[in-house]
Amino acid sequence: MAERRLKHFGWGREGEGLTAEEESAALDRYRRLFGVDRFDERSPPALSEIALRQPRITPPPALAASCSSEPYDRVAHTYGKSFSDYARGIAGLYDNAPDVVAYPHNEAEVAAVADWAAGAQAALIPFGAGSSVVGGIEPAIDGTQCRAAISLDLRHLNRVVEVDRTSRAARIEAGVFGPAIEAQLKPHALTLRHFPQSFEFSTLGGWIATRSGGHFATLYTHIDDLVESLRVVTPRGLVQTRRLPGSGAGPSPDRLFIGSEGILGVITEAWMRLQDRPRFRAGGAVQFADFLSAARGVRAIAQAGLYPANCRILDPQEAHNTGAGDGSSAIMVLAFESGDHPVEAWIGRALECCADHGGVPEKSGSADAHREGAAGMWRNAFIRMPYARERLIGRAIIADTFETAITWERFEGFHNAVKTATEAAIREATGRPGQVTCRFTHVYPDGPAPYFTFHALGRHGDLLSQWGRIKSAASEALIAAGGTITHHHAVGREHRPWYDKQRPELFAAALRAAKRAVDPQGLLNPGVLIDP
Amino acid sequence: MAERRLKHFGWGREGEGLTAEEESAALDRYRRLFGVDRFDERSPPALSEIALRQPRITPPPALAASCSSEPYDRVAHTYGKSFSDYARGIAGLYDNAPDVVAYPHNEAEVAAVADWAAGAQAALIPFGAGSSVVGGIEPAIDGTQCRAAISLDLRHLNRVVEVDRTSRAARIEAGVFGPAIEAQLKPHALTLRHFPQSFEFSTLGGWIATRSGGHFATLYTHIDDLVESLRVVTPRGLVQTRRLPGSGAGPSPDRLFIGSEGILGVITEAWMRLQDRPRFRAGGAVQFADFLSAARGVRAIAQAGLYPANCRILDPQEAHNTGAGDGSSAIMVLAFESGDHPVEAWIGRALECCADHGGVPEKSGSADAHREGAAGMWRNAFIRMPYARERLIGRAIIADTFETAITWERFEGFHNAVKTATEAAIREATGRPGQVTCRFTHVYPDGPAPYFTFHALGRHGDLLSQWGRIKSAASEALIAAGGTITHHHAVGREHRPWYDKQRPELFAAALRAAKRAVDPQGLLNPGVLIDP
Repeated sequence: MAERRLKHFGWGREGEGLTAEEESAALDRYRRLFGVDRFDERSPPALSEIALRQPRITPPPALAASCSSEPYDRVAHTYGKSFSDYARGIAGLYDNAPDVVAYPHNEAEVAAVADWAAGAQAALIPFGAGSSVVGGIEPAIDGTQCRAAISLDLRHLNRVVEVDRTSRAARIEAGVFGPAIEAQLKPHALTLRHFPQSFEFSTLGGWIATRSGGHFATLYTHIDDLVESLRVVTPRGLVQTRRLPGSGAGPSPDRLFIGSEGILGVITEAWMRLQDRPRFRAGGAVQFADFLSAARGVRAIAQAGLYPANCRILDPQEAHNTGAGDGSSAIMVLAFESGDHPVEAWIGRALECCADHGGVPEKSGSADAHREGAAGMWRNAFIRMPYARERLIGRAIIADTFETAITWERFEGFHNAVKTATEAAIREATGRPGQVTCRFTHVYPDGPAPYFTFHALGRHGDLLSQWGRIKSAASEALIAAGGTITHHHAVGREHRPWYDKQRPELFAAALRAAKRAVDPQGLLNPGVLIDP
Repeated sequence: MAERRLKHFGWGREGEGLTAEEESAALDRYRRLFGVDRFDERSPPALSEIALRQPRITPPPALAASCSSEPYDRVAHTYGKSFSDYARGIAGLYDNAPDVVAYPHNEAEVAAVADWAAGAQAALIPFGAGSSVVGGIEPAIDGTQCRAAISLDLRHLNRVVEVDRTSRAARIEAGVFGPAIEAQLKPHALTLRHFPQSFEFSTLGGWIATRSGGHFATLYTHIDDLVESLRVVTPRGLVQTRRLPGSGAGPSPDRLFIGSEGILGVITEAWMRLQDRPRFRAGGAVQFADFLSAARGVRAIAQAGLYPANCRILDPQEAHNTGAGDGSSAIMVLAFESGDHPVEAWIGRALECCADHGGVPEKSGSADAHREGAAGMWRNAFIRMPYARERLIGRAIIADTFETAITWERFEGFHNAVKTATEAAIREATGRPGQVTCRFTHVYPDGPAPYFTFHALGRHGDLLSQWGRIKSAASEALIAAGGTITHHHAVGREHRPWYDKQRPELFAAALRAAKRAVDPQGLLNPGVLIDP
């Protein structure tokens, strides 16, 4: 059965979305939060209503069959899934649509597209599945040297090419979507075990290019640590690194391309480290009096060397919003899993760490505990969340998230400063209070990765500006308080002003020089990370 | 009590070395190995016998008090501790002695020395404690644009400046030697827990610059993973990265400087991730029929997600040479430790993994097992080994090591190819058989880091060439078979021919460009990693 195509506006494939019940529950909650009876409803324009400029370039004959300038393709490759993308999409603004979308069938065609782009002085925008929430795949070329834009969609590079059971590794093409990777690994009883929230609609290459974070809280969860070697097509040729379990030979070549967000080359395939599928599990939810107590429990576990698969905490409001709690306490979603051995000793000690900070288990020990109770409610809400946004923006509801990381000793003050600044910005931008909640997505011995969600009621016609003021205030606050502008969402174009404050100036100079060495014409994803 | 100064030739401080018993036992073993009754003995020249060129530059008045051109300083900063260094040292060849050794007292003086170097077009060679085994600190400027050479010794940057108990991190200056770091952390009940074999005579900055590997076999043992943030003085100014437990904001700035071996800047301090001091330990030695069975046991443990502190294997000959075994079986040195919880569940499962491959524990469960029995014998030999080389070369004994990493599915063939090529090269270069042994120093789920030791009997006057032929053959073999030219010894100048084959050409172009951005005159450690 052929899969339906991806929506040109919204999350997932055509025909998918929130159920009527889910939508109604979400809207009820927002009506109560904002104290309104109804919302001002708008719909996004139909594909046929979207005006596009004439394409400025045409592919050479040899690539014509792998390229399209059809409206659907161009519209569906204009935006990712950030709030700003939705706000411009619902307003019908598609000025930055690519001139051509290329769908190469193999690495040789990727190189051919790069050659064509070089000849045409066209921007080349690597595209996985378009789930960027930071403007990472928008063909925005105003102010650059580029005369046109090509979106390079890697969906046909969709195979697990080779599996090495002994070393537990696989050679995987960059355009494979998450579920297709796991489906191809399952017969080998192996898993990449990398499950970002975007899992269904994101690709291996996108994960590597953006330093994606999986949903596991500790240890081998970041794509950075799962990469064994890379193949990258640059305008000056191919980069191929060695398959090595470890190496100390100079600065890691892989680490230069991991997180390069398409500005240094097009990742075409990687050898990835795999894991055995989990056979043993234990976990459940733990209640804490408040978020800061829960954070201290997390710190104890993170510093104990136990490495839980999950160790997230939700503040009381976020627990309430996701159905995981009644709003009176903070919730920790705690889980251990192993493909090798029972994990009772591990969870037992972790629960002791929780108890030291007043944490009371809701239920524990069940193998499926992570799918039941509060943990299960939260898990379900987590997976469905991306579908909500396209429905909320039609009601002028500004619902967005941002994420960061900070060391433990600054966390409490940091959390307070960022939450306060964001709440104030919501009042200032929209004229009424909203809500800011927090959870942890990842935890390290030296600090957590706090993930903030905010909700505000905006006004159609003014959404982009209202959101921008809130986003700016939140970003300013977290940079001023010592955090990172992104822990796993990447920089793209939207985080540039704050990334520019965060990264050392001489590192930017070095990165710019490195880019010129592999992309002398400045064609690759201009505007992302650095200006040429 | 003032510490004695470091030897100008040999390992450690003046007056330290092998005991007569240790030396006699080692020589007995070599007599049996090579079938000789006596060795042709030579001594290294005394300091006063070493001829040095006149210094080509003089420091500016403001730096004069922090600089020296005394013979001891210049001689002691000419070489590291590679075989080639010893071979040239014993022959009295000190053509590459630095003109001046600078001992800055703080970061401002480091910057002042860099400014002076820029004005004088002098090479600037960052120097920690001089334990490089790859020619990483030799002021070799022939063929470069540099007109003189300054060795920049960071020994006065020797403080743990700040300790953050909550996040378990410390701000540490780059020039602190290993024992001084631990001594300063001990009152806080914290440890960096990074113990390379060179621990006593190497520094934090050197570890970071060379991607040092600690002696723990798994997980947080590489310096790469322990760095939270860096300060680096470059000729164009200071680089300061943010203290973050994790970040996904572009390619990691830290990872560009980690492993940069002094070519991008002088690391002056770092925030480092610490750990609680271990309170719980279990371990001991496990015997296996042969090395390959032991390797399969290691693979099982590495893929089980148990993360032992130690999980090294020694082949039968290496076990015999170090006193850990009788030569009839391979030995695994296995240990778990934790600052938080008993580790019985962990060691219990690891021993099951061993048993699956025929591994029989010698003794286990004792808290001090790692200091007793075969494990203890090996540990002692490991710590004393560096002192042996200065005594062996005087007898024309070529004893050296090299290390690499490879994925599991290629390991057995790789091991055979490298061992065979090295043995053949020994016969070809010296006219008689020698010995090549192997152990693992680090293990990963996807492969081990094999560490080879070789022993050959050379001839005074020809040692450098004989060693070079063996080293080249071994390096060619491991590169041809897919390994890395170094897992944790670094590239320096000696590994360049094989590193040049290993790293992608376009990565070298990017690194070269990055270097020009921060070191436009090409002053920093010329010849290391890349040519300007």
